[in-house]
Amino acid sequence: MVSGMPALDALRDRLAELADLASLQRLAGWDQRTMMPPGGAPARAQQSATLERLVHDRATADDIGAWLEELAGGGDGLGEMDADLVRLARRDWERVRRIPRELASDLALASAEGQGVWQSARAANDFAAFAPALRRNVDLARAYAACFDDVEHPYDALLADYDFGLTAARVREIFGPLAEALSALAAEAAERPEVPALTVPIDAQRAAVDAILARLGVTPDSWRVDLSPHPFTSWVGTQDTRITTRYLPDAQIESILAAIHEFGHGLYERQIPPELARTNLGRGTSMSAHESQSKLWENHVGRHPEFAPVIASDLEAGGFTVAPDALHRAITAVKPSLIRVSADPLTYPLHIVLRFDLEVALIEGSLEVADLPAAWSDGMRRLLGVEVPDDARGVLQDTHWSAGAFGYFPSYALGCLIAAQLWERLEADAGAQDEALRAGDVGAIRAWLAEHVHRYGRRLDTEPLVEAATGRGIDPEPFLRHVTPYARA
Amino acid sequence: MVSGMPALDALRDRLAELADLASLQRLAGWDQRTMMPPGGAPARAQQSATLERLVHDRATADDIGAWLEELAGGGDGLGEMDADLVRLARRDWERVRRIPRELASDLALASAEGQGVWQSARAANDFAAFAPALRRNVDLARAYAACFDDVEHPYDALLADYDFGLTAARVREIFGPLAEALSALAAEAAERPEVPALTVPIDAQRAAVDAILARLGVTPDSWRVDLSPHPFTSWVGTQDTRITTRYLPDAQIESILAAIHEFGHGLYERQIPPELARTNLGRGTSMSAHESQSKLWENHVGRHPEFAPVIASDLEAGGFTVAPDALHRAITAVKPSLIRVSADPLTYPLHIVLRFDLEVALIEGSLEVADLPAAWSDGMRRLLGVEVPDDARGVLQDTHWSAGAFGYFPSYALGCLIAAQLWERLEADAGAQDEALRAGDVGAIRAWLAEHVHRYGRRLDTEPLVEAATGRGIDPEPFLRHVTPYARA
Repeated sequence: MVSGMPALDALRDRLAELADLASLQRLAGWDQRTMMPPGGAPARAQQSATLERLVHDRATADDIGAWLEELAGGGDGLGEMDADLVRLARRDWERVRRIPRELASDLALASAEGQGVWQSARAANDFAAFAPALRRNVDLARAYAACFDDVEHPYDALLADYDFGLTAARVREIFGPLAEALSALAAEAAERPEVPALTVPIDAQRAAVDAILARLGVTPDSWRVDLSPHPFTSWVGTQDTRITTRYLPDAQIESILAAIHEFGHGLYERQIPPELARTNLGRGTSMSAHESQSKLWENHVGRHPEFAPVIASDLEAGGFTVAPDALHRAITAVKPSLIRVSADPLTYPLHIVLRFDLEVALIEGSLEVADLPAAWSDGMRRLLGVEVPDDARGVLQDTHWSAGAFGYFPSYALGCLIAAQLWERLEADAGAQDEALRAGDVGAIRAWLAEHVHRYGRRLDTEPLVEAATGRGIDPEPFLRHVTPYARA
Repeated sequence: MVSGMPALDALRDRLAELADLASLQRLAGWDQRTMMPPGGAPARAQQSATLERLVHDRATADDIGAWLEELAGGGDGLGEMDADLVRLARRDWERVRRIPRELASDLALASAEGQGVWQSARAANDFAAFAPALRRNVDLARAYAACFDDVEHPYDALLADYDFGLTAARVREIFGPLAEALSALAAEAAERPEVPALTVPIDAQRAAVDAILARLGVTPDSWRVDLSPHPFTSWVGTQDTRITTRYLPDAQIESILAAIHEFGHGLYERQIPPELARTNLGRGTSMSAHESQSKLWENHVGRHPEFAPVIASDLEAGGFTVAPDALHRAITAVKPSLIRVSADPLTYPLHIVLRFDLEVALIEGSLEVADLPAAWSDGMRRLLGVEVPDDARGVLQDTHWSAGAFGYFPSYALGCLIAAQLWERLEADAGAQDEALRAGDVGAIRAWLAEHVHRYGRRLDTEPLVEAATGRGIDPEPFLRHVTPYARA
């Protein structure tokens, strides 16, 4: 592909190089979490830092600026896709160039050190031991935000790295009514009798994971399924998607729901059109958009009442018998709890709202790190009606802040909301999926997502993408319609 | 580590970067051969090409030349290790800078295409279909050799990439008497009754591979053992060594001997001193030196008569019973054959002598590609006394020439010779290993190799390394002493 515009060709070559290096970074990360012997960790840290430094140098180089300038002058003849490519290249380059080299290196160091300190502090249930590292991360995040003079709130600059175009104000606008409605539903659910948890033998879980992934379209010629302590997905190439899950004896069928969730991430990247591959447009557009894909598969397929007989029959083939409606009740039961990652689908976003409120306050300086544990307990009481017994099961439970990742949390809840919106629209367009799901057939779902979500790659940011797919911006109502029955089951 | 010499610090930083990138290349290669789903191949080819291009750019950059110049002026204050580091950096940089960019790219392309053509040609037993690609590779190898004006024979320039310091003349001097002696022994062996081959159930092979590797020191904290169609070793980090083996129903205990062989490669890289890590000195010095390590473990440990009871007992634990002396006879039986990779330990070097003679003749232009099959058949008759029935089992059996790798073959035989030399010296220094091997104890062997071979990294080239370890240059006599009993068993 030669365009007749040397600056565009040069830019495309650089973007292809950066895409390849990003794939190698994902490969190294996947290997580290699934295959690498533990002794390999120190060398891998150096290898990853070297690769990261090279990527940074190539992504911030002056030559990109020169090509962009040339294209700004004579770029009127660009096709639509190339115009998007140039637009995003400019945006990415300008953002990364705003960060002084020393600040970037301080951020990386504080992130690595913060995670180490957090691990020990959490194990010792000792917030005071973690506080200085957290304070350092907050200060650096504020310094990072201060590099951007075009934002209304410093938090917006952080959010932009995960979900470009969203703002603290917009998220608050969405989360306010959501939290109110969900807290009321959670209180309602707390009055109802508890649903007994299932205990599913791990062999049956394994058999069902394999069978269900095969139903969704996971084939060994271009997918891998491995184990990792925290399930994740890595897309090493368009036809090389690697998901993981985990098997726990006391987590019902978390292994199955996690595998379906990760499949959603993988499918998003695979169904981005080949012509966007090895450009800056050829990946999922944001954390929220990605999470909407994983949550759509997890919540709307995996937890669909008509899919329960399919899961039950695959468990049966693995030697475990459960009635489909008992299974469905168990995986949709509402019970306010302390830990985000094991929260039920209804109360999950409340955990996120709490974290969003607190991190915005930390970044704007209206909350001191020392006051964080008390604010956490207050929030848990107010939102979920639960008492926090200690910091290990409270403010120390998540790794994100220890790594300096402020602005990441909202995507977990926004993903749930967007998933529900997409699902309603999908069924409006393609018809109710009850019958297809009962037959284990997800072809129409895959096709609708390819056409209405995946095909854009990064060409649309989060909220414009939601608008293009559903005709309106992010809206909590479909999610509330989806989970309300769970509170009253 | 800051030296007070900015040019040295800069050079060290670049060498560390190149070492990290080489580790990532090995990781990508390992993944491709063990884990990657087949659909990942096209994307991986692009990722690897991008990484290769970056490595080439960083290794040939002008700034290295400037640092070297500065160090040539004021480098008298260098310690011994830094002096070696600078000496090798200069040698590597000057060699790679001699190759015009276009020739490098032609070589890479012809290598990739040649391997594709070869695969089809071998499957079709059609040498004529392969000849044009081979001719192209020969022409490019000659053009490559012509970039070096400081060699006596063009083949020397090719050999230098695998075994710096060796020459066609020196290899011929070693191989001449070796071939004569081995051919005579092979003829002698052909007169003796055939030893029946073992058939070992694959489950028993697996159990024995695990048990034997554990005896050698393979632990899951810093090694991996996987499967691949062609066994190989990848060192991703000092404490991250990955070996592979393969299980074939009709290959006796090849899986065990291959695993021991690969262990030898892995141990070499692991026992290089940590202070050489992430420099240009921190790896095995040459292909011959590497092969000497794998062959020492395969031939002198794995095929040691006193180790046979250990293997037999590990097979027994896996459910297969064999008498130790029957096992030893089976894995040391001499039988001239057509295929290099399944040759017995005595006749193996004869396959290499043939390839060396032919590739030297191709490179110097005294043999035409069209005449190669006939020359192959003549050589097999003369050296091994066997008739070649077709090219698939003759000149088309190996991939090396199709990839343009001329100068690689000698290391396979030189490795056997050096291994035998090292083993004699090791037993002279550390005492006969019979008793230790009977007990499955290889501690003294590991320690001697660390002290006399591994500790040099790249600081000594092949033959100086052999001299340092054994007091003399490469010598075929120890190998002949080692294999002669096999011909008369």
